[in-house]
Amino acid sequence: MDQLSLQDPLFATYVIAATLMILKAVSMSWLTVVRMMSAKGGFRAPEDLRKTPLNPSPDPKQLEPDERVERIRRIQLNDLENLPFFLVAGFLYVLTNPSLLLAQVLLYGYVVSRLLHFAAYLSARTHDTRATLWTIGSLILVFMTCRTLIAALGY
Amino acid sequence: MDQLSLQDPLFATYVIAATLMILKAVSMSWLTVVRMMSAKGGFRAPEDLRKTPLNPSPDPKQLEPDERVERIRRIQLNDLENLPFFLVAGFLYVLTNPSLLLAQVLLYGYVVSRLLHFAAYLSARTHDTRATLWTIGSLILVFMTCRTLIAALGY
Amino acid sequence: MDQLSLQDPLFATYVIAATLMILKAVSMSWLTVVRMMSAKGGFRAPEDLRKTPLNPSPDPKQLEPDERVERIRRIQLNDLENLPFFLVAGFLYVLTNPSLLLAQVLLYGYVVSRLLHFAAYLSARTHDTRATLWTIGSLILVFMTCRTLIAALGY
Repeated sequence: MDQLSLQDPLFATYVIAATLMILKAVSMSWLTVVRMMSAKGGFRAPEDLRKTPLNPSPDPKQLEPDERVERIRRIQLNDLENLPFFLVAGFLYVLTNPSLLLAQVLLYGYVVSRLLHFAAYLSARTHDTRATLWTIGSLILVFMTCRTLIAALGY
Repeated sequence: MDQLSLQDPLFATYVIAATLMILKAVSMSWLTVVRMMSAKGGFRAPEDLRKTPLNPSPDPKQLEPDERVERIRRIQLNDLENLPFFLVAGFLYVLTNPSLLLAQVLLYGYVVSRLLHFAAYLSARTHDTRATLWTIGSLILVFMTCRTLIAALGY
Repeated sequence: MDQLSLQDPLFATYVIAATLMILKAVSMSWLTVVRMMSAKGGFRAPEDLRKTPLNPSPDPKQLEPDERVERIRRIQLNDLENLPFFLVAGFLYVLTNPSLLLAQVLLYGYVVSRLLHFAAYLSARTHDTRATLWTIGSLILVFMTCRTLIAALGY
């Protein structure tokens, strides 16, 4: 049984989609750091107002929300509401032994929908664009999860 | 080795509990959407005040917190603090080869505790009811995790 | 194939690191509860102002943010942004069959970096200390994820 072999095309498809999504999620933390450093603000912890090599000129205003930082935090929260569940749902879905083509469409389709959602959110496109992209990803997630539940129930 | 076979009753128990919890988590996103649409508010991104087919009459008040929307967001945050860890802990726990009955009690017990927690939170029951239901789920999670840790340490 | 056997030293390493991180994450919820009870405040839901055995003397001020509680919530949010992705990335990483020593350095190194990050955040050390510890963990996570992605792509 090579269910979890990276040489298995089906499992490798999942692993590629999953690692791309993990890198995407971690990037949001780094992007928050980059924007906090360029804004020299948007901090949250009171101790971040201490004078340090990374913050040589502290100012109480640094604890006020900065919209450029807050935007990344909203994107990241959206990731937290979606990606951990995709990572588990995708794993269990490939264990139901779907066709490789269908798995590729769903898993890579999810990745693309999330990357486009990120682009739309980052560039402040209108809500309807962002919502459509989120919906595509969410429906893929619901489909994979329901398909897996039905398989586990023995139907 | 049929460890990860959906025909294996132990693994199928995990998969059923996991997929139900994933669907529960995703439902919170959809419920947030439903409540934002019925309140025509509770939005968070500044660009959501643009006039679009989904928001034909924008109003700055739409960015103010709406308690009916915030309630779902609090429930969802509680999910994020619990469900991803349950999904992994439950998976690793069934790999320790517990008795099927015990696994069913723990995994389905967790699912039931979370669904009741949701009902208590949604209907604004007193804190003590909600806290009791949360505690049951959290103790199940801690038990499964400790049991798995002890097994991995070789005792 | 004993890939997922707890007797396998490589997989056991992952399971020990993963369960420790799950217990760490769950502890943040309990620590929030402990601090809310000692502060008799820092609540978030309006219904928590009702008189109950656990809250015999309700007061509207109980819904105001309490810094000792908010600190744990910030730590917990940082966990949510990191740990679920570590749990999946570490699992997939051990499936690439790395050397046991390297896996131990990375997985236990991540655990240690997060525990020190927690200690630094809890005791309000300066931002630079906390940021350094977070960075170590994040780089370990990125390394494991990239290594897994490369393996899944067949290189």
